[in-house]
Amino acid sequence: MEALSETMTRTFTKEAVASAFQNIQAAICEGLEQVDGKASFSKEEWQMASGGGGLTRVIANGNVFEKGGVNFSAVQGKLPAFMKDKVSAEATDFFATGMSIVIHPFSPQIPIIHANIRYFETNAGDAWFGGGIDLTPIYVDEEQARFFHTQLKETCDQYNPEYYPKFKQWADDYFFITHRNETRGVGGIFFDYLKGNDNTSLDEIFEFVKAVGNTFLKAYVPIAEKNKTLSFTEEQKNWQLIRRGRYVEFNLVYDRGTRFGLETGGRIESILMSLPEHASWIYNHKPEEGSEEEKTLQLLKKGVDWA
Amino acid sequence: MEALSETMTRTFTKEAVASAFQNIQAAICEGLEQVDGKASFSKEEWQMASGGGGLTRVIANGNVFEKGGVNFSAVQGKLPAFMKDKVSAEATDFFATGMSIVIHPFSPQIPIIHANIRYFETNAGDAWFGGGIDLTPIYVDEEQARFFHTQLKETCDQYNPEYYPKFKQWADDYFFITHRNETRGVGGIFFDYLKGNDNTSLDEIFEFVKAVGNTFLKAYVPIAEKNKTLSFTEEQKNWQLIRRGRYVEFNLVYDRGTRFGLETGGRIESILMSLPEHASWIYNHKPEEGSEEEKTLQLLKKGVDWA
Repeated sequence: MEALSETMTRTFTKEAVASAFQNIQAAICEGLEQVDGKASFSKEEWQMASGGGGLTRVIANGNVFEKGGVNFSAVQGKLPAFMKDKVSAEATDFFATGMSIVIHPFSPQIPIIHANIRYFETNAGDAWFGGGIDLTPIYVDEEQARFFHTQLKETCDQYNPEYYPKFKQWADDYFFITHRNETRGVGGIFFDYLKGNDNTSLDEIFEFVKAVGNTFLKAYVPIAEKNKTLSFTEEQKNWQLIRRGRYVEFNLVYDRGTRFGLETGGRIESILMSLPEHASWIYNHKPEEGSEEEKTLQLLKKGVDWA
Repeated sequence: MEALSETMTRTFTKEAVASAFQNIQAAICEGLEQVDGKASFSKEEWQMASGGGGLTRVIANGNVFEKGGVNFSAVQGKLPAFMKDKVSAEATDFFATGMSIVIHPFSPQIPIIHANIRYFETNAGDAWFGGGIDLTPIYVDEEQARFFHTQLKETCDQYNPEYYPKFKQWADDYFFITHRNETRGVGGIFFDYLKGNDNTSLDEIFEFVKAVGNTFLKAYVPIAEKNKTLSFTEEQKNWQLIRRGRYVEFNLVYDRGTRFGLETGGRIESILMSLPEHASWIYNHKPEEGSEEEKTLQLLKKGVDWA
């Protein structure tokens, strides 16, 4: 009965969620094109055999962005076996819509950025939202990390003062490269299975999730704009390639969305557009003591209070 | 009782296996140094807290080899939970020794090579060998692929005529990038859980596994020697970087040894020395029809009869 009482508070349709996500996708692409000043996002529509499809938008070889994608999808089908323990026993079909972004700038002065918002429902009344935004600087600028987290906190606080601390910790735990014992970057927020409860309707969560999507540009663009004019050395570029290698490790080994996509036979090019154009692995690479690279490594830890 | 009858045919000690593997490691490093003509393998000894350790040997920035490692390890400890269904109920402790190689040449004319031999036993009498060799050409040269497979087949045939066909198919199935629907390269042989049976003692299997290790240089060096003088274009280099990206995908998503290492807290730099120094991901890259790159893709399929 829990699922039923939750859905009673839901007045939106799944089409409304998909449409809102697609609008956010369009706004984000436009905002990033302005930052880049040269490249624009391609548009590629695709369909899945089981129903639905998506719109993949890719930017490449820009002034600022080397490779990046903003992907929207709205798909439906028979519930995969591994989802059965997460939904009502009667559920047989699912609908899922999401928008996800990964942007790899050319310059090591500009952080990699990732964001995702998603919605899942079944024909048995299960329904929840998830999402997150996290920043991966090649060199951590503490002021900018604070700025980024402050933007996220402000959005969270408008909906629930408990959200930011909870979702910030969730991001620390999620965006963690266990085998390296380091966080992917300076984190951000991450949340999943937000189904609503007695105090918060699913309608309100839908509003929150849209607000998270709309926070993307305000949290990232000022950082990208400020740093895009900075010069960089070959050594800094090499460090970027190594950090991108860690990004690849995270995405292929741990990222749930990536592994879900690979295992369910999603569109590979859309799933793996999160990978950088170039990445490096240097055996046993250790930054020099006291170097900027080492300072960054010191900050790639859980539990740093950025906001 | 099955485990017992198997172990009755075993007259070697685990130290003898470790020692044989280490000798093969030394011979392979020497052989590869001769091919390179400039760089030599470093030596790095390491210990694991639970017991045992290893010797990691790495080559970098040579004439021929950009990055490569030949890793030996012999470790022991408490049996990990996920191994319990593979061993006798009474087993509590394991010993594992292995030697594994991944070599990434600079030139796209020279294939990436991988090989591995390994032995596992428990304190309850379980004991088995595993191993494999597979070749990943950036451009498939059919004559060389046949040469490579023929060497492996000759070694297999000396021990059992059923080995090559069986282990060749096992390699096709194992070195397969499911989400790309392509094999990693032209395959080779792969085998695991060789415990011996009424016809074949574990002693004989030990001999076979050593022979596989000793086949490495004969199967690879002639190819590397022949191709190392060939020139290559920037376009061919870019194709190499893309194929290396697929190698990274295989190792991080599917390779059992890599995932076992990451999950059991092995020495990360030794586990991930298999990753290339540089790799690329280009969104939706498709080779031109009729190009050499496309011809290679056509050959990255299961079931090609190379020997």
